[in-house]
Amino acid sequence: MVKLSSFMTLSLDGYYSRPDGDLGFAHRRDPEFDAFVADNARSGGNLLFGRVTYEMMLAYWPTPAARADLPVVAEGMNRASKFVVSRTLENASWQNTTVLKGSLVSEIEQLKRDAKQPIVILGSASLVTELSDAGLIDEYQIVLAPVALGAGRSLFAGMKRELSLHLNETRKFSNGNVFLRYAKAR
Amino acid sequence: MVKLSSFMTLSLDGYYSRPDGDLGFAHRRDPEFDAFVADNARSGGNLLFGRVTYEMMLAYWPTPAARADLPVVAEGMNRASKFVVSRTLENASWQNTTVLKGSLVSEIEQLKRDAKQPIVILGSASLVTELSDAGLIDEYQIVLAPVALGAGRSLFAGMKRELSLHLNETRKFSNGNVFLRYAKAR
Repeated sequence: MVKLSSFMTLSLDGYYSRPDGDLGFAHRRDPEFDAFVADNARSGGNLLFGRVTYEMMLAYWPTPAARADLPVVAEGMNRASKFVVSRTLENASWQNTTVLKGSLVSEIEQLKRDAKQPIVILGSASLVTELSDAGLIDEYQIVLAPVALGAGRSLFAGMKRELSLHLNETRKFSNGNVFLRYAKAR
Repeated sequence: MVKLSSFMTLSLDGYYSRPDGDLGFAHRRDPEFDAFVADNARSGGNLLFGRVTYEMMLAYWPTPAARADLPVVAEGMNRASKFVVSRTLENASWQNTTVLKGSLVSEIEQLKRDAKQPIVILGSASLVTELSDAGLIDEYQIVLAPVALGAGRSLFAGMKRELSLHLNETRKFSNGNVFLRYAKAR
């Protein structure tokens, strides 16, 4: 089975978005952090999304604006094999995208068995919470932004049991972001 | 004015306690982290609490159990100058403790003017949130525990405006804790 990782930006108080869904706090451009994101995009692999995140990404990455703004990341996102979990989405218009319509746990177990390269979930908080409860996420990559929001949407809200993690890596960026990489504790 | 810092342990999802107030997730003893806490306790300075945290600390640090378990920290806690913000507390039975009964902001402004050494708020989430809104906290020291709770009491809940921070230090401990030190952004 290939490794399944989650990649998520959080505020210091554990929110992945403001109360209204706005993600503006998470985007703090600087050259060092942009290079880190571009390296991730270059590394290939499979991307997995929930429907909400998929539609947000679809509205940006295939556009000329994205290609102008972050060319390496845009090319990586458009070229990557993408999977979106949704029972309502009829078909996926973004290139190289497969819709997973079956039972969540068996779809993801099968994807982990069949995939040749690692899988990364970008954003997609509800999906991350559900798959954490199912014990299917092997690694959590968190970008901790240097801001406290005071209110917002909490990652892991509604998770059925606490999740113990093993810290593997920390990296400090000049824009104040801290990258944290945890493995699921055994 | 002396520096006012907040020291708080958080879960990865931004909670300072479980929903019922339990703090067990925050205590991951290991020699390296214990030495870090003992160094903090030795460094002197003034401690500031809200009433709830004060009463929790009072129930532990002056006891023989605390002296046996963490002797350096217990001695530091008992000897330090302590201040507790409360309108209901009649008198403070813990040695070297002063009750601050007046208007919060003016009490803390005066304390920052009059104190000879830095002040650290331990825990006391409501106090930290109120003083953040008043712009009176200069530094945030966060210990990020390697656990996600799924539910709990959020630090900064109800804060009136977002808090932008400047990252100054990260330190990774062998028990999986990450220590983060932020200054209030100007």
